[in-house]
Amino acid sequence: MASTEFAKGLEGVIAAESKICRIDGQEGKLYYLGYSIEDLVEHCSFEEVTYLLLYGELPNKIQLDDFTKRMRASRDLKPPILDMIRNFPLDSHPMELLQSVISYLSGYVEHKIHHSATCNCRQTLHQVVQIASVIAARHRFASGKDYVEPRMDLSHGANFLYMLHGEEPDPLEGEIMDKALILHAEHGFNASTFTSRVVASTLSTCYCSISAAVGAVYGSLHGGANEKVVAMVEEIGEASKVKEWVNQALDNKQKIMGMGHRVYKAYDPRARIMEDQLKELSEKHGDTRNYEILKAIEEAVREKLGGKPIYPNVDFFSGSVYQQLGIPPVLFTPIFAASRVAGWLSHILEQRDGNRIYRPRAMYTGIEKRDFVPLAERA
Amino acid sequence: MASTEFAKGLEGVIAAESKICRIDGQEGKLYYLGYSIEDLVEHCSFEEVTYLLLYGELPNKIQLDDFTKRMRASRDLKPPILDMIRNFPLDSHPMELLQSVISYLSGYVEHKIHHSATCNCRQTLHQVVQIASVIAARHRFASGKDYVEPRMDLSHGANFLYMLHGEEPDPLEGEIMDKALILHAEHGFNASTFTSRVVASTLSTCYCSISAAVGAVYGSLHGGANEKVVAMVEEIGEASKVKEWVNQALDNKQKIMGMGHRVYKAYDPRARIMEDQLKELSEKHGDTRNYEILKAIEEAVREKLGGKPIYPNVDFFSGSVYQQLGIPPVLFTPIFAASRVAGWLSHILEQRDGNRIYRPRAMYTGIEKRDFVPLAERA
Repeated sequence: MASTEFAKGLEGVIAAESKICRIDGQEGKLYYLGYSIEDLVEHCSFEEVTYLLLYGELPNKIQLDDFTKRMRASRDLKPPILDMIRNFPLDSHPMELLQSVISYLSGYVEHKIHHSATCNCRQTLHQVVQIASVIAARHRFASGKDYVEPRMDLSHGANFLYMLHGEEPDPLEGEIMDKALILHAEHGFNASTFTSRVVASTLSTCYCSISAAVGAVYGSLHGGANEKVVAMVEEIGEASKVKEWVNQALDNKQKIMGMGHRVYKAYDPRARIMEDQLKELSEKHGDTRNYEILKAIEEAVREKLGGKPIYPNVDFFSGSVYQQLGIPPVLFTPIFAASRVAGWLSHILEQRDGNRIYRPRAMYTGIEKRDFVPLAERA
Repeated sequence: MASTEFAKGLEGVIAAESKICRIDGQEGKLYYLGYSIEDLVEHCSFEEVTYLLLYGELPNKIQLDDFTKRMRASRDLKPPILDMIRNFPLDSHPMELLQSVISYLSGYVEHKIHHSATCNCRQTLHQVVQIASVIAARHRFASGKDYVEPRMDLSHGANFLYMLHGEEPDPLEGEIMDKALILHAEHGFNASTFTSRVVASTLSTCYCSISAAVGAVYGSLHGGANEKVVAMVEEIGEASKVKEWVNQALDNKQKIMGMGHRVYKAYDPRARIMEDQLKELSEKHGDTRNYEILKAIEEAVREKLGGKPIYPNVDFFSGSVYQQLGIPPVLFTPIFAASRVAGWLSHILEQRDGNRIYRPRAMYTGIEKRDFVPLAERA
């Protein structure tokens, strides 16, 4: 490239090597550390997948028991954090609170060797675990309810639902929450993961790097697609109205939320899994409206576009799954952070290995030099 | 570049166009929006320079009065913020607290039009102003003292010293604090400014973007150089020992902190200004030890390297200036953030104009695919 050209948004520019995530967009496949997402969702707990992301290998039984115990022991929120959550303005977005809490938590950790590859970031797991606890506590307080202390006998997903609703979830619900967390735990480079690596490249703490990534996901160009899908479903209202709605939307060049993906040119493998979960949960709850509307949208889009390869992505079904779990839309993006934090930490640890600080250049296009005009003489 | 090559840390890669800052490293010149740093430091208040950075032009008298009034009105900290500061662990770093508070403050603003170029980020200035207030309050609480409410009749720098020490600073001290804030307000792209732009590119709030940038400056590869210079001065102890210390250090290939700069091949213009401030302040206080040691280091390095063009940078003198103002080293990096926040906000606003989300690629170098091994069968 000539020095006056550049790729806006660094599009297409390689910013790092990574061994964490492989996406095969043509085949519709996703792998964490070489393991297919289908295998991980079917066989693993969220803790197990987090271990894989942080250590690069699946744990054996002893390692998993120890790691799970450490993750669960990190769930409870300290009184100053509960105060922060309680004091946070009711009509403000929980993502701002989440970003704030994660960097605040950094102050509770002795980052003894946080500049080394053998740092203690895999030991103190509050930065990973407490995102779910903060979301639940915020929802409780915002609903005028009390904080629910975590249960150590529940999986990460089931405990989140327990802390959110104050009652133990049905086993299927807990399981589906876990699967949703696993599905979103990692997806290669995007603006938030890149942010976590840029901050980590200065040798800041992992808490501070994760906090920054939360700030990136909060942006409307990054998070929030599943919220918009749910809003679209609400707007349409019933399956019989889908065809007309979709045809009109596509005629007006309107984007159908949750359909199509920048990387996947085949079916997003996460969407398939989410679809199955939604179907199962909807049938169990006897409320299949959203599921039917979504499937009708998928069909109507395919019909209208005459077989053009456009498929649902993970956001298409996830919002409706969360709704079936009693989770309000404002928490969808925070839940994404509660899951993706495992991937962020994985990238932060990888970044520190052979680290170079991120410091691209800007091309100056402003005024070269101007004379100073004293205040009294300015128009 | 072939697709398997990439620039580590995006070194040399152009990430954006910018009209904000021009650095002429060969000539040792620095300009904000075309105005030389010498002019700005000599004639402007910090508020005036902040206005320039946010609006692209120097204000007239009416604009400056209004803007100054709005900045000053944003100084006082709300009770929940004071609680956060009070509760923050005493032995933890104020940067983690600062990062946390800035995103928390985002919750107090109605970001009505934060996705538009005509957003209200220039109206609510807590994200710019309160960094200084938080630093002062943290220092007060950590010293067992009470919060000092801001004074509306003092400049930004003088008010900071007032909130820090609980007494009105000598006019020269207030003026020098202002000049230090102006000097550090902007310096083109670096890891923290880049971070603020990456987060802003998702259309997150300016508070959340600034919070993320604070996390980047906290990293030891980014902030903290002036702290290390002060530690070096302490280690050397007196001017007569400098020559031997420097010769030995350079023989051992040890880096002399605060000497040399990646961009400036001539004298860092900020260093000259800081040097003058340090001299004036030291003479006034009758304590010229640090000044003499620093000048002796500069001379010894020049002598030893036989005229090789290596000059002091801004960090060389700034720490000693802050010490003369009664500021402990742990606050040096937070003060950098209190100043640079004006530049960050300038870049955030610029980023939103013709925005594209930052989304570079990673080159996958990991395992392509591996078979899943059930937990019971893992070694």
